[in-house]
Amino acid sequence: MSSEAGQHGPLYLGIDGGGSKCRVVIVDAADQLLGEGLGGPANPLRGMKVATDSILTATQQALLAAGMTFNDMSRLVAGAGLAGVNMPQYFQLVSEWQHPFAEFHLTSDLHTACIGAHKGEDGAVIIIGTGSCGLADVKGQCLDIGGHGFPYGDNGSGAWFGNQLVHHVLLHKDQIGAATLMTELLTEALGVSATLEIVGHFMHATPTVFARYAPLVFAAAEQGDLVAAEIIQAGARHIENIALRLCSLDPQRLALIGGLAYKVQPYLSAQVQALITPAQASPEFGAVWFARARQAQRQSELLSVSNQ
Amino acid sequence: MSSEAGQHGPLYLGIDGGGSKCRVVIVDAADQLLGEGLGGPANPLRGMKVATDSILTATQQALLAAGMTFNDMSRLVAGAGLAGVNMPQYFQLVSEWQHPFAEFHLTSDLHTACIGAHKGEDGAVIIIGTGSCGLADVKGQCLDIGGHGFPYGDNGSGAWFGNQLVHHVLLHKDQIGAATLMTELLTEALGVSATLEIVGHFMHATPTVFARYAPLVFAAAEQGDLVAAEIIQAGARHIENIALRLCSLDPQRLALIGGLAYKVQPYLSAQVQALITPAQASPEFGAVWFARARQAQRQSELLSVSNQ
Repeated sequence: MSSEAGQHGPLYLGIDGGGSKCRVVIVDAADQLLGEGLGGPANPLRGMKVATDSILTATQQALLAAGMTFNDMSRLVAGAGLAGVNMPQYFQLVSEWQHPFAEFHLTSDLHTACIGAHKGEDGAVIIIGTGSCGLADVKGQCLDIGGHGFPYGDNGSGAWFGNQLVHHVLLHKDQIGAATLMTELLTEALGVSATLEIVGHFMHATPTVFARYAPLVFAAAEQGDLVAAEIIQAGARHIENIALRLCSLDPQRLALIGGLAYKVQPYLSAQVQALITPAQASPEFGAVWFARARQAQRQSELLSVSNQ
Repeated sequence: MSSEAGQHGPLYLGIDGGGSKCRVVIVDAADQLLGEGLGGPANPLRGMKVATDSILTATQQALLAAGMTFNDMSRLVAGAGLAGVNMPQYFQLVSEWQHPFAEFHLTSDLHTACIGAHKGEDGAVIIIGTGSCGLADVKGQCLDIGGHGFPYGDNGSGAWFGNQLVHHVLLHKDQIGAATLMTELLTEALGVSATLEIVGHFMHATPTVFARYAPLVFAAAEQGDLVAAEIIQAGARHIENIALRLCSLDPQRLALIGGLAYKVQPYLSAQVQALITPAQASPEFGAVWFARARQAQRQSELLSVSNQ
């Protein structure tokens, strides 16, 4: 155990569970970081077993890093922000999980990202990761945009960019679309070049698999490829539209987070860029603060009941 | 048994297996139709068990209609055009099926559609069904375009139109896209109107499910909806590009087939429309003729071996 505080005060587990991976932190009551862990996808839409296995794998890593044992899991007050639990049926499903923690407080990954980014203050966030979505939380009003899933939603996300890449490479190979450098880059990345081999790779592909190849679109555009540049314009336009819609609540700051945020940011309008501030803390810390706020709320409710 | 010919001469089973359904015919040596049957998806990408169950269900229906018994299955010389078997691994998988027929000759659904449409003569076909693809077969040269699968391919297909519909309805509901009549039509069709309920319906949806809602895009456009009209223009442009590419082989006729063919046709260029001729026979008959040609070829090979 690396911290004295951890031995006595309460311990918190912050979980950020997205469509591709799950990050967790263990901190003490003073927010001192005791350990971190990483797991696979923790979006319950991908299956409850996958999601809970990812959370437990990441938590065990974090416990190990903190010099604690698996038995200490039952001491952790957990806060989890998970992709997908904005859908009531998935919120319900995860809520019914027989979790191994002392407490388990659940909300969406977008919510904990916003709490983390602005340290619990008012503001807005847009996540550009495997999926894309935005949230503004201003003066008690909350506005939640996008994040509906791939392929009918999540434009401008990693999954969407990867899918556009494969689409345009196949058009090129079929000679019904413009030649693009992306064909060469994808061929190199996959180690195969025949159309049927490329198709074989992406048949039944999950959003995570598509998202893995999204950076190739940006690499091609940086080398002057016009097809790639048009894809990026279209993706960024969608993110811009999310940002403008969030502005209807007049947030004073906007944090862009997720693996593709820094790639998309330069393509946004001056109006939106002027609002952008770096996230002050990670979504995992947002999840910790969410858990602590819920714990305090519950304790004050219990107190008010026992005082009646 | 409705035909004397069927009692003595060989009997043929023609199978047209697409992504949403499977149609079969049983005919005698004179192409007289003895029975028809319909089953579910017969694309092996959706699982071999699903595909073979669909084929067997449809065949049993056709046998029943022909006044034959299930035992007669072993008398049938089958020809099958299946979606997906342009991929070598799926061709292999289906070829290894322990089928219950006398013979089983396999090719792609596109190939049997072309044989059917032009009665085995040179020509081109474009299928606009759950997926989209085209084939030209001219002077022994064969050109095969698209049909790579959804969501990275199959633009202009039923699955693609349905996905575009859901995408634009969600943009409208999130107020980051133009208002569209498609929202009202989809809400009516599903019997639900909340965003999360719509998303719940299409989460994990197969191409077949998306394709089911494609007609709503055309219905909205017919009522003057501009968002729907733009989707149709984009889808038709893709089909137009397939047609123009097939023209590089200079086919003298082009048949458009599949559930959405008649919807998309009016949006194609005059150059392409001038080539269009109605299909002369269905893909199921194309599958029968394919089987008969292969059977004849095999017999002549056996004969040439025994004569050496």
